[in-house]
Amino acid sequence: MNKLIFKYVGKVLIGFSILLLFPLLVCLIYKENIIPFLTPLVVSLLIGLLLNSLKIKNTSLYAKDGFIIVALSWIFMSILGALPFLFINIPFYDAIFESVSGFTTTGATIFNNVEILSKGFLFWRSFTHFIGGMGVLTFVMAVIPLSRSDKSMHLLKAEMPGPNVAKLVPSIKKTLFFLYAIYFGLTFLELILLLFGGLDLFNSLLISMSTAGTGGFTIFNNSLMTISLFNKYVVAIFMFLFGVNFNVFFLIIVMKNIKNALKSEELKVYILLYIFTVLFILVNILKFFTSFKDALISSIFHVGSIMSSTGFSIGDINIYPTQCRILLLCLMLVSACAGSTCGGFKISRLIICVKKLKKDFLKVIHPNSVYIITYDGKKVDDKIVDNTTTFIFLYIILILLIMLIISFNGYDFETTVNAVFSTFANVGLCFKISNFSAFNALSKIVLSIGMLFGRLEIFPLIVLFSNLKKNR
Amino acid sequence: MNKLIFKYVGKVLIGFSILLLFPLLVCLIYKENIIPFLTPLVVSLLIGLLLNSLKIKNTSLYAKDGFIIVALSWIFMSILGALPFLFINIPFYDAIFESVSGFTTTGATIFNNVEILSKGFLFWRSFTHFIGGMGVLTFVMAVIPLSRSDKSMHLLKAEMPGPNVAKLVPSIKKTLFFLYAIYFGLTFLELILLLFGGLDLFNSLLISMSTAGTGGFTIFNNSLMTISLFNKYVVAIFMFLFGVNFNVFFLIIVMKNIKNALKSEELKVYILLYIFTVLFILVNILKFFTSFKDALISSIFHVGSIMSSTGFSIGDINIYPTQCRILLLCLMLVSACAGSTCGGFKISRLIICVKKLKKDFLKVIHPNSVYIITYDGKKVDDKIVDNTTTFIFLYIILILLIMLIISFNGYDFETTVNAVFSTFANVGLCFKISNFSAFNALSKIVLSIGMLFGRLEIFPLIVLFSNLKKNR
Repeated sequence: MNKLIFKYVGKVLIGFSILLLFPLLVCLIYKENIIPFLTPLVVSLLIGLLLNSLKIKNTSLYAKDGFIIVALSWIFMSILGALPFLFINIPFYDAIFESVSGFTTTGATIFNNVEILSKGFLFWRSFTHFIGGMGVLTFVMAVIPLSRSDKSMHLLKAEMPGPNVAKLVPSIKKTLFFLYAIYFGLTFLELILLLFGGLDLFNSLLISMSTAGTGGFTIFNNSLMTISLFNKYVVAIFMFLFGVNFNVFFLIIVMKNIKNALKSEELKVYILLYIFTVLFILVNILKFFTSFKDALISSIFHVGSIMSSTGFSIGDINIYPTQCRILLLCLMLVSACAGSTCGGFKISRLIICVKKLKKDFLKVIHPNSVYIITYDGKKVDDKIVDNTTTFIFLYIILILLIMLIISFNGYDFETTVNAVFSTFANVGLCFKISNFSAFNALSKIVLSIGMLFGRLEIFPLIVLFSNLKKNR
Repeated sequence: MNKLIFKYVGKVLIGFSILLLFPLLVCLIYKENIIPFLTPLVVSLLIGLLLNSLKIKNTSLYAKDGFIIVALSWIFMSILGALPFLFINIPFYDAIFESVSGFTTTGATIFNNVEILSKGFLFWRSFTHFIGGMGVLTFVMAVIPLSRSDKSMHLLKAEMPGPNVAKLVPSIKKTLFFLYAIYFGLTFLELILLLFGGLDLFNSLLISMSTAGTGGFTIFNNSLMTISLFNKYVVAIFMFLFGVNFNVFFLIIVMKNIKNALKSEELKVYILLYIFTVLFILVNILKFFTSFKDALISSIFHVGSIMSSTGFSIGDINIYPTQCRILLLCLMLVSACAGSTCGGFKISRLIICVKKLKKDFLKVIHPNSVYIITYDGKKVDDKIVDNTTTFIFLYIILILLIMLIISFNGYDFETTVNAVFSTFANVGLCFKISNFSAFNALSKIVLSIGMLFGRLEIFPLIVLFSNLKKNR
């Protein structure tokens, strides 16, 4: 393997050790034991410095290498991020599951009772969502100077979700700066509103970070059931917003080009799908609620929570009838817009696939017709169409494989399907079960791998594994 | 629309009226009322003669027209085939469901108690499987002389399942003759063996016809639970055989070319998948059975029943644990070989898709590599690969849509998913419910449409609908 890969992973780990200062600080503020966070900090820093000190002659980085850097970084981070949990005596597979669930912004937890966790741990869980949301590598790229832009694009392409990455401004560093500004800005805005809605600073901060990463960890066992109605609407709106492609915000906020921003096909489909689903659910759950108001917030909140892949809940969703469950399960897999922090295979891919289907239809009916697939007004390259359909296939096949393994755990059909969809698409919310504590070790490890595959959109891990096999 | 289409549909209906002589004969033998079968016979004959008498100048038939002829023929047949059931006072949607389930070789029934049905009706149900198995049009094509072979290929392509139709011998009529010879021959062989195994002639005939069409209707409420162990093995073997591409039998029986026949990739995958699944199920159900022998026949029988899309059962499959159910549900959608009487989207399509995935993988890892998709040693045209992936997508999307409608019926998640898979893939067997009587009218109609879409492999109906829309 290209040694430069390890040098980059080293840089990621150094950056990661800096991030570990934050939970350490929280522990100091609340006078808690800092050892659980100091340990991974030191380990991460040492490995990072070691790898970074590698002498490299070769400085060229290929697309393949970008994938491997991303895959390795996420695996290292998941393991190091799990270390703190070992200090509270949970099995290693539980610690790994919780850490992976955090970084992949899934939000499925193995804790039966999160309310007994200390502030440092509660902070760490939500913070992993915040880190995972925008991707660690983009962070590193923003911090360390990269001279050749094609090199950085490889990394960006490997980590950014969605079929393609649009360079918003000519310089990658500037692009990243704006993306981060939007990310932090929205998070801060939510924090202020939640404070205004009556939550304390600690809880507001954690909920905001979880929402920003579309994660789902909270500090209560019943998720967000007890927050005020105002705050429920605040969270619902921000969940929806964090499912929007950040390019849209960039166009609106930085470029002041609202007209162009609203032209985005993906945004339109996202909004329509969201409204349709909210109404669909609302009509079907009305009879289970005492008031229209309760049904309305339940529908708005949970549809946003599932479509954005956040996974917060504000009440029992098990009363939802079968038609609602099936629709929501399908939407889990689709999720929201590419270029956001959401999971699933993204609406843009769905759009491209549907257009491909339409094209093939027309070909059958009118064999001589010429139909060009366009997206946002531009012709889509055949290769991208091809990759998109392949990706969704692969997505489905991997889900089926994982499902088959998980089914040995002895859960009923719906729970099995739901647990796999929920973790692979990085949602975290699951009908019938309130947390993942009761799954066995094998299931937890396989689901963790599934979460990573889902978050990294499959290819980086495949490339890594195929290279490991070759190097043996 | 091309008037020639109606002329052909007319010919199909005349052929269909002749087929109705068989149940009529059964009624005469058992001294039952012949009116239920005489009515559709007369109606079918009259409409057929009327349409056939159309004066046509234009004699050219396009691919599109082939699709429409097939779609219209199946719709007419389903309606006419439902007429007899109206004489025993069941609602029209039940009659349509039963008729469609018969012709599409699904075998899902709306009768809570089939044992009270008269011999004529029992015969008719299994006979519809037998008719549906090889397709009505191929029958008509074998009977009426067609001068131009390209014309006939359009029809054959539109109705024969699978990604492509291989002309076995230069003449289509000869090809059809051999296919029918194999079909009748295997059916007859099963009949003899079942008689030998202790069943009476009537029951043996009905089971043989149901197996040949990979249907699943029987004369008992508990399917084939009460037949002898020998006969269970006979049926299991023949279910497996009717899932094999008829080309394989042709090569073995007519061409005596066993070596070439066994080279078929699809056959190899079918056999391996079958053996793997039988062993998988066996290991997982052993503890629920008192003897190994019972578990073995349960596994062999039900795996064959589901993979061949027949849907017979010989005992309670609800004891199967979740991992078995999930595997079997997936296999329902795949089913067996193209060019057989089975349902699903066929193993050959799965093979092509997997190869496409492999190709795209390699492209990511080695961007400059050249990998050619081959099937049975020959390069597969990009267009066929494209159509195959599109087809499977469309298949999944249609299933999801139907599932969403059926979910309103209020069944739990597993039953809803299973009922839709089972009907769309023309299997008929469903975990948790023993028949489809309790579904509401809307569900029954939608499931009937789904069965037709599944049997005709989607395109003929789409082409028909898009043409109807255009003609308005």
